[in-house]
Amino acid sequence: MKRRVAVLGATGIVGQRFVQLLAEHPWFDLELLMASERSAGKRYAEAVHWVLEKPMPRIAYELQLHPIDIEMLSKEKIDIVFTALPADVARDLEPQIARKGIVVVSNASSMRLEPDIPLLNPEVNADHVEVLEAQKRVRGWSGVIAKVPNCTTAILTLTLKPLVDEFGIRRVVVSTMQALSGAGLTGVPSMFILDNLIPYIEGEEEKVENESKKILGSVKSGRIEFNNNVEVTASCHRVMVLDGHTEAVFVELNRKASVDEVAKALEEFKGNKIRGLDLPTAPSKPVVVRKEVDRPQPRLDRMEGNGMSVVVGRIREDKVLNGVKYVVVGNNTIRGAAGNGVLIAELLVRKGYA
Amino acid sequence: MKRRVAVLGATGIVGQRFVQLLAEHPWFDLELLMASERSAGKRYAEAVHWVLEKPMPRIAYELQLHPIDIEMLSKEKIDIVFTALPADVARDLEPQIARKGIVVVSNASSMRLEPDIPLLNPEVNADHVEVLEAQKRVRGWSGVIAKVPNCTTAILTLTLKPLVDEFGIRRVVVSTMQALSGAGLTGVPSMFILDNLIPYIEGEEEKVENESKKILGSVKSGRIEFNNNVEVTASCHRVMVLDGHTEAVFVELNRKASVDEVAKALEEFKGNKIRGLDLPTAPSKPVVVRKEVDRPQPRLDRMEGNGMSVVVGRIREDKVLNGVKYVVVGNNTIRGAAGNGVLIAELLVRKGYA
Amino acid sequence: MKRRVAVLGATGIVGQRFVQLLAEHPWFDLELLMASERSAGKRYAEAVHWVLEKPMPRIAYELQLHPIDIEMLSKEKIDIVFTALPADVARDLEPQIARKGIVVVSNASSMRLEPDIPLLNPEVNADHVEVLEAQKRVRGWSGVIAKVPNCTTAILTLTLKPLVDEFGIRRVVVSTMQALSGAGLTGVPSMFILDNLIPYIEGEEEKVENESKKILGSVKSGRIEFNNNVEVTASCHRVMVLDGHTEAVFVELNRKASVDEVAKALEEFKGNKIRGLDLPTAPSKPVVVRKEVDRPQPRLDRMEGNGMSVVVGRIREDKVLNGVKYVVVGNNTIRGAAGNGVLIAELLVRKGYA
Amino acid sequence: MKRRVAVLGATGIVGQRFVQLLAEHPWFDLELLMASERSAGKRYAEAVHWVLEKPMPRIAYELQLHPIDIEMLSKEKIDIVFTALPADVARDLEPQIARKGIVVVSNASSMRLEPDIPLLNPEVNADHVEVLEAQKRVRGWSGVIAKVPNCTTAILTLTLKPLVDEFGIRRVVVSTMQALSGAGLTGVPSMFILDNLIPYIEGEEEKVENESKKILGSVKSGRIEFNNNVEVTASCHRVMVLDGHTEAVFVELNRKASVDEVAKALEEFKGNKIRGLDLPTAPSKPVVVRKEVDRPQPRLDRMEGNGMSVVVGRIREDKVLNGVKYVVVGNNTIRGAAGNGVLIAELLVRKGYA
Repeated sequence: MKRRVAVLGATGIVGQRFVQLLAEHPWFDLELLMASERSAGKRYAEAVHWVLEKPMPRIAYELQLHPIDIEMLSKEKIDIVFTALPADVARDLEPQIARKGIVVVSNASSMRLEPDIPLLNPEVNADHVEVLEAQKRVRGWSGVIAKVPNCTTAILTLTLKPLVDEFGIRRVVVSTMQALSGAGLTGVPSMFILDNLIPYIEGEEEKVENESKKILGSVKSGRIEFNNNVEVTASCHRVMVLDGHTEAVFVELNRKASVDEVAKALEEFKGNKIRGLDLPTAPSKPVVVRKEVDRPQPRLDRMEGNGMSVVVGRIREDKVLNGVKYVVVGNNTIRGAAGNGVLIAELLVRKGYA
Repeated sequence: MKRRVAVLGATGIVGQRFVQLLAEHPWFDLELLMASERSAGKRYAEAVHWVLEKPMPRIAYELQLHPIDIEMLSKEKIDIVFTALPADVARDLEPQIARKGIVVVSNASSMRLEPDIPLLNPEVNADHVEVLEAQKRVRGWSGVIAKVPNCTTAILTLTLKPLVDEFGIRRVVVSTMQALSGAGLTGVPSMFILDNLIPYIEGEEEKVENESKKILGSVKSGRIEFNNNVEVTASCHRVMVLDGHTEAVFVELNRKASVDEVAKALEEFKGNKIRGLDLPTAPSKPVVVRKEVDRPQPRLDRMEGNGMSVVVGRIREDKVLNGVKYVVVGNNTIRGAAGNGVLIAELLVRKGYA
Repeated sequence: MKRRVAVLGATGIVGQRFVQLLAEHPWFDLELLMASERSAGKRYAEAVHWVLEKPMPRIAYELQLHPIDIEMLSKEKIDIVFTALPADVARDLEPQIARKGIVVVSNASSMRLEPDIPLLNPEVNADHVEVLEAQKRVRGWSGVIAKVPNCTTAILTLTLKPLVDEFGIRRVVVSTMQALSGAGLTGVPSMFILDNLIPYIEGEEEKVENESKKILGSVKSGRIEFNNNVEVTASCHRVMVLDGHTEAVFVELNRKASVDEVAKALEEFKGNKIRGLDLPTAPSKPVVVRKEVDRPQPRLDRMEGNGMSVVVGRIREDKVLNGVKYVVVGNNTIRGAAGNGVLIAELLVRKGYA
Repeated sequence: MKRRVAVLGATGIVGQRFVQLLAEHPWFDLELLMASERSAGKRYAEAVHWVLEKPMPRIAYELQLHPIDIEMLSKEKIDIVFTALPADVARDLEPQIARKGIVVVSNASSMRLEPDIPLLNPEVNADHVEVLEAQKRVRGWSGVIAKVPNCTTAILTLTLKPLVDEFGIRRVVVSTMQALSGAGLTGVPSMFILDNLIPYIEGEEEKVENESKKILGSVKSGRIEFNNNVEVTASCHRVMVLDGHTEAVFVELNRKASVDEVAKALEEFKGNKIRGLDLPTAPSKPVVVRKEVDRPQPRLDRMEGNGMSVVVGRIREDKVLNGVKYVVVGNNTIRGAAGNGVLIAELLVRKGYA
């Protein structure tokens, strides 16, 4: 039986992706769209400034935009709520929704580091859903909250996980070139970025450094224990690209590995944690390795695996760091946000939480 | 008395900058422009596709483009030749010019790593001109060759030098976002880069890694000894910016330094090696430190010090690498090419070589 | 039975679109790819710099690139050849292919204005195929040549046709903002166009002015008679857009028409000339009218009808010209080139020429 | 004696240009900067997001931003106020300032069409200052208001004026490609315009159509009579260019003129109305004609005459419209706004109004 789902914050970039991915989802029925007061009351098609590469799905033309209203979620018997709300709104609101017995899959950055809130990149750490039992019990919720990681971190950790498993990682230096869509629909004025780049994204470096340790961590007695062995230092920059974050990654490994071994580990990474679950949004290859000297490129690679795979290239030995360096591109609004959110919801269904 | 100078490879981007900077130079008279056969014979104004932000200087309208011709350089009594030629042309040609008793200041990448060819970033290593005596003697030239470093490396080493002197550097990880002008006038088709970036620049990473060690090296018995204590690993990327390379730099220091100490060392760096020489192209501050959270930015900072200063910002402690991380922007065709070439020529005049 | 088809000039932008559209075509089997000597001999996937928004189709990975070879076309029993060759190559080559009994659908600008060569925009002038009989007889060919119009003209005439039919047109003033892909893969260097536009496209204005009259013309005794009643003046400009030409059109009408009447005429245009033929590539609506004040926009509208529809908006009365003004966007490499070529081939199949 | 001047709305794009141009003006002392409540109280350098191609002038670092306060203007003995305010704020405020005996030079669109408010493009219609006498008398002001025309219109009319004088104009069709800076600092989000264009600018077409008639009009008994013989129809579009509006202009002339005659008329236009007044901001050539086939281009031509000249190219006969077509580029924030404002103020000083 299909789950009834709602999107909160439906008009923003991530909201648009949620609508696009849920419009024809085999397990989910998109029933309800909610947004800030300003656009509530209008039809979705009127209120949204749709910017995705494909036209708005038919169903989106028929839906109304409602103001955010928890009672209405209950009344409409919503099973799963996808939130793409600002962190400050989400912080208060999401626990209230979970308390109503609804599953919350949230892209907001609030609560991401709390030890009983799983921060899921399913191929990497699907087992972290285990903490949900403790979450419900301790917090007294009948629903649950699961968090979508920061976009840059989700893309990065898909490539770190096979290296941690295979060779061990000590230090990671990552320098990013992030897409405009990561700042939201109107986040970056064109006068600021044309013929330019902006070497600063508020809070981003801290998110990458901290969330990576949690995602690569493990569950101990109902709580996620961060993996503090993997140290990450980041420098984050905004560039003139619509979609697709690019990351230059330098990794100090625990044991020497050749370029071929690294390529093999990445290519063979299958995301065992969700193998066999047959999640509809899971890509067949979470990590695609390309051999061309000038790939990956965001415009050419961001739709790999329908935007759910990350693409790695330029794997080189790094003698200075005793490890390896490479470049990875991932779709920040799909793999890094809404697509990952849908994948998480699928996982929660399979695991019996929704 | 003013020196008579020529530019070889005058129609490309770096050639245009040489023409612009030499057109009104107090010490140099621009007498001769040479370029490949294809455009030779035309007037410069006809042959060039001028793209600089200011209109072509008046003198450039009057000059003819000649084919490359060493005899003509002698006949016209040229004192200094600035070359912006492809490396494969320069490799053979430049020694022939030096043999004629002419000073060659070259932006070509050929011979850059030879121990008796100074690779000059004057504020950092003006003392390397010392090797010119040995160069002339051993090679039997009556002129000399001095090299302009790779653009990315010139910008980087201006910031590394004060840190080496003050705190000592062990390792440098640098990830670049380089401007289109670095690839030449027609190097990057717009279809390849719009809404995109290209994570590869042929040979660039090796240049940064190797040339940095030479520039930071020292002279021992007529040869430059590389500074192998400073290890550099680079990842180089092309982005949609006309001019101005941006570099995210992570530095492991030999001794702990606070952000303030690092900022102070950078800001107080005066390029002692050329202090007091009163070189007209030397900027008053080779390194400018900005405190704003989102600077430096290439469009806003690339003309600092008439394009001869580099601008550093976002200085942060890096606990992972036991050092510091920061972002630097420099003008790749001025500080990183033609401007540095003119500064080198001025140094050679003061030192009696031209 | 499926026709065996080949693409000549397969590595350029239009060639890539042909490959994409033919890879899964219900009536055509893509058998052969040919290109210039430079890339011939390689596998297609190696030689091409693929830039389309979707990944290369599977079949393209398996195909070899051959040099252009008319004998091979015969030997391989090719029924239809799609050419995306430069005009000077096409001028000699295409008649030789037609002579071999092969159907040539050509995007090259050569021969476009000859009265026995149909210049087809099928919804507008499918009846022009009639001249093929005379073409074969007079030229003594066993095959035929049909031409794809200039991209700007194809998009424009789809909107002019319903206005000619409904109200009559005297004069058209059109000012274009054309995409980079129209200049080919490497046609516009990024240094020339970033933060800029180029108000000139060689030969384009003449093409628009002349080809429009032919497309809107009629067949008289085996020859196409130009419609000289419709006078067109054009100004053509290149802008920083990957795909999708935008045209600001001002039309002097023969009889007064309200904005609503014009919108209705455009919206109800069904391309009667091909109604009922069930051509797989024909869009359900050749002209889509949007009411939003700021549409059409190339990035948002270029994939309408899989790139085969044009999108019209901002229809306003023009009191100065006694008519109407509007903006139209069309996909220049699909509707304006390869897509139109495939549609023409389908028409020729239905009409018994292939 | 230097006039004491103030800028209202100093932090926006046009405000920045005013500050830049006034910082070192020979006749004006920049004494006061005012802006909206939000940024008032800060130092200018802190509050402004400076985006101009040259660094902020020294004096701007020292100035405070005050809230808008008419009393303060009087107290500070301001002679001339330059306003770059939104139209709705300006509508009420500017008459109050004029009433205080202060000269108001305003870039706001309010009141632009009133017959006793001169809308000045000095080389074209400096004689319209005559109406100021009637303005003061009828309105009972001791100061005056003069308006800067819409940017697109200012650029256009500089090219129309010599054609009107020489050949007579019946109709003008103009299609524009306008720069981002015309929409203000944050007017166009990058997500909306990258790889795109927007074929709509609110109110712009009406401004071009109406203001042109006023600027080309003449003074009759203390009022400006519009020139209704010149009919203009416009289509306005926003493109990915930082600065510099490009306009494709089609002109129906009253008498036949060759391309050479048109070029000559444009080139020889000296703006007689201000010849001999020696206004410091007046360019030596208000209209520059270029012969290259692909000029003018905004990035290359927007700084011609320090941004005060417009550049015309591609002059072609237009047989369809019985006239001529050409392309013009002008700097929208200098010639089209702040630069023109300063020129107007200089004119008012010379004419004894300030």
